[in-house]
Amino acid sequence: MTICIFGAGYVGLPLAYAFSKFYRVYCFDINKNRISKLKKGIDLNNQFGKRKLVNKNLFFIDNLKDIKECNYYIITVPTPIKKNNTPDLSYLESSSKTVSKIIKPGSVVIYESTTYPGCTEEICIPILEKESDLKYNKDFFVGYSPERINPGDKIHTLNNIVKVVGSNNRETTEKIKRLYNKICKKVHIVSSIKIAETSKIIENVQRDVNIALINELSVLFHKLNIPTQKVLEAASTKWNFHYYKPGLVGGHCIGVDPYYLSYKAQTVNYFPQLILAGRRFNESMGRYIAVQSLKLLTKKKINLQKARIAILGFAFKENINDFRNTKVLDIIKELENWKLNIKIFDSFVPPEEVKNIHNLKIYKFKEIKKFKFDLIIIAVAHKEFKKKITFYNNYFKNKRKKIMVDVKNLFEEEEYKKNKYAFFLL
Amino acid sequence: MTICIFGAGYVGLPLAYAFSKFYRVYCFDINKNRISKLKKGIDLNNQFGKRKLVNKNLFFIDNLKDIKECNYYIITVPTPIKKNNTPDLSYLESSSKTVSKIIKPGSVVIYESTTYPGCTEEICIPILEKESDLKYNKDFFVGYSPERINPGDKIHTLNNIVKVVGSNNRETTEKIKRLYNKICKKVHIVSSIKIAETSKIIENVQRDVNIALINELSVLFHKLNIPTQKVLEAASTKWNFHYYKPGLVGGHCIGVDPYYLSYKAQTVNYFPQLILAGRRFNESMGRYIAVQSLKLLTKKKINLQKARIAILGFAFKENINDFRNTKVLDIIKELENWKLNIKIFDSFVPPEEVKNIHNLKIYKFKEIKKFKFDLIIIAVAHKEFKKKITFYNNYFKNKRKKIMVDVKNLFEEEEYKKNKYAFFLL
Repeated sequence: MTICIFGAGYVGLPLAYAFSKFYRVYCFDINKNRISKLKKGIDLNNQFGKRKLVNKNLFFIDNLKDIKECNYYIITVPTPIKKNNTPDLSYLESSSKTVSKIIKPGSVVIYESTTYPGCTEEICIPILEKESDLKYNKDFFVGYSPERINPGDKIHTLNNIVKVVGSNNRETTEKIKRLYNKICKKVHIVSSIKIAETSKIIENVQRDVNIALINELSVLFHKLNIPTQKVLEAASTKWNFHYYKPGLVGGHCIGVDPYYLSYKAQTVNYFPQLILAGRRFNESMGRYIAVQSLKLLTKKKINLQKARIAILGFAFKENINDFRNTKVLDIIKELENWKLNIKIFDSFVPPEEVKNIHNLKIYKFKEIKKFKFDLIIIAVAHKEFKKKITFYNNYFKNKRKKIMVDVKNLFEEEEYKKNKYAFFLL
Repeated sequence: MTICIFGAGYVGLPLAYAFSKFYRVYCFDINKNRISKLKKGIDLNNQFGKRKLVNKNLFFIDNLKDIKECNYYIITVPTPIKKNNTPDLSYLESSSKTVSKIIKPGSVVIYESTTYPGCTEEICIPILEKESDLKYNKDFFVGYSPERINPGDKIHTLNNIVKVVGSNNRETTEKIKRLYNKICKKVHIVSSIKIAETSKIIENVQRDVNIALINELSVLFHKLNIPTQKVLEAASTKWNFHYYKPGLVGGHCIGVDPYYLSYKAQTVNYFPQLILAGRRFNESMGRYIAVQSLKLLTKKKINLQKARIAILGFAFKENINDFRNTKVLDIIKELENWKLNIKIFDSFVPPEEVKNIHNLKIYKFKEIKKFKFDLIIIAVAHKEFKKKITFYNNYFKNKRKKIMVDVKNLFEEEEYKKNKYAFFLL
């Protein structure tokens, strides 16, 4: 038994590692730098400690020629959106094309990448058939098993989550179930690829809509002078209330999947109301936070042209280095529109990459002591920012005018008041 | 210690009963019929078994003159909406007026009725002050403690839920906390009436939006030929997915509260996007179900003018007699627009009341055996409808054409197929 995994990221790497305890595994990625690091046992995503990945059954490769014939091919490549918010299937297509050149009769191809209902059958399988000259469901077989990796979450790991598995062929489903049962305690079988695809995408759509609702409530409560956090705490004492925090919703799942589902909806002339309502609201939060910041500065009689602003956090989520589709960028862009003087601090994200992609300078958090600010915006709840409030007091140019915009509720209302801050809590 | 409770409905009655174990309680309602039944120990809402309510500490009254001077007044009157979907505060206002005439210095008035943030302070307290000639927070005191009664739910009862309690005065809050602690294990204190009001209303708004999202997904998946129920089951195996069923959302809480919150929002020029998006979608479901029914009949070549349709269920929720704001009415209205021949079956709701209010004839479910139908619509999941599928087979005029619209997923797709139904599952 040999398995080839396409993609050595958040999804592919833990999968490759888990399977390598039982089978020979090839883990392929087009990112040569990532592969060369992984070969040395270094995972910059911090999912694995140093050298844990060095294993005689696990081969990291970046050259297609090195992919050997395998029984199972598992696709874990990213499914991002294009600039116009439509699905970018290029990774899915190119990995399918690669697989099509090497599959042999009897091979099973499993997709784990999140996508819209029908994508595997309408886009991927035709590519597999075309180049391989093999027949789907006769010569080779295809399944879908949505990934449920939650970056940074040590509790819900591959081993103890329920893994959904589906194909359009009972025998193949059984095969894939047995495969995943080696590494996951529980497998939930569904009767088609489409059901499996759909079950995944709605998880993130639901999350997006729920956070958007809380964001809307937070915006409304700010106008009504009602403390959102206290309201959420009280509501959460009800058995069926879902506790979500308001905030920026980016990343490559929640911020992306609603666009995938609505793309598919529109192909059957259905124009989504709720699926995209969450996205519409969440996309507006960065700008809203920027405007609240400017309002506070002006209220405290600080000249906007001279104001110095620190933004704490650039990653799309706390304690990770991933900044794909980060919505902190929306705050930054809005402030840059006003030509304000800002500095961004984040010790997790790689500064060179941020420089290359966004042309932004990222400072390590420890460098903050070199500067004085009029306003600090806490945008991400990295553990490095969780200090006592006196720590923050030090950075204000004029210590009688301390202004903080706290998107992540790092401190409570009472603490800001006690320390005489002008503040905005989302 | 004497307590007077205004409203002897779903909220007031359990409260009166619970307090009567410790204190003398007057339970007042303007519905004379309800009070005369309660005096005999009969609760037509079925929250209490026969004669359980006969208690020497508990006085049911329908005459204002019988209300004696009390230490605590608890308002549990309904807060419905008017025909134009704006708050109908008449019960809240009239009960406040009544209380204002009897409160004495030291009295505490507690509101439990769900309402928008600020309503207690802006509407109720001024009424209490005006007529009583007493000063709020000096002579008398006001608190808010949202009801969390879930009709038909035997698990989450007054005794074992967390009760939120708030007032704008620490001493009053402590007093109210001690009062409720007699009958509820856990009390959660908040620091203002407004926070307490808001915490309640968002619970129902969240529920409404979540069901609306699932309704939208169900509508979309029907177009994409994806079985909604299977998708929801698979998604629910994820640790943080919220399992909601699609369906009609009526009743006097979830179907009403979003309008209350959006009413308040508009007073500060905030036009809600998500708060009402759920309502907009949910309000459309009755018509959607009616149209799916007509489509099925037509597809099966049944002449619509001659079609006989059974609708099972009229209550707003399973196994209760409450039909306030039932959305089954939307299905009925749409079918009546088409001048179709329908019969409604529901053994829970009181037929005379439905006749008076809606001019609709309600049959007991056992009467169904007198009729033959072309289409059965299961609209409510009353336990009386949970039979074997062969039970339903009997009612079809033409047994080769069995057509069922199953809003509540009483049977699975496979069972309908096996029994050769033309069917629609929400």
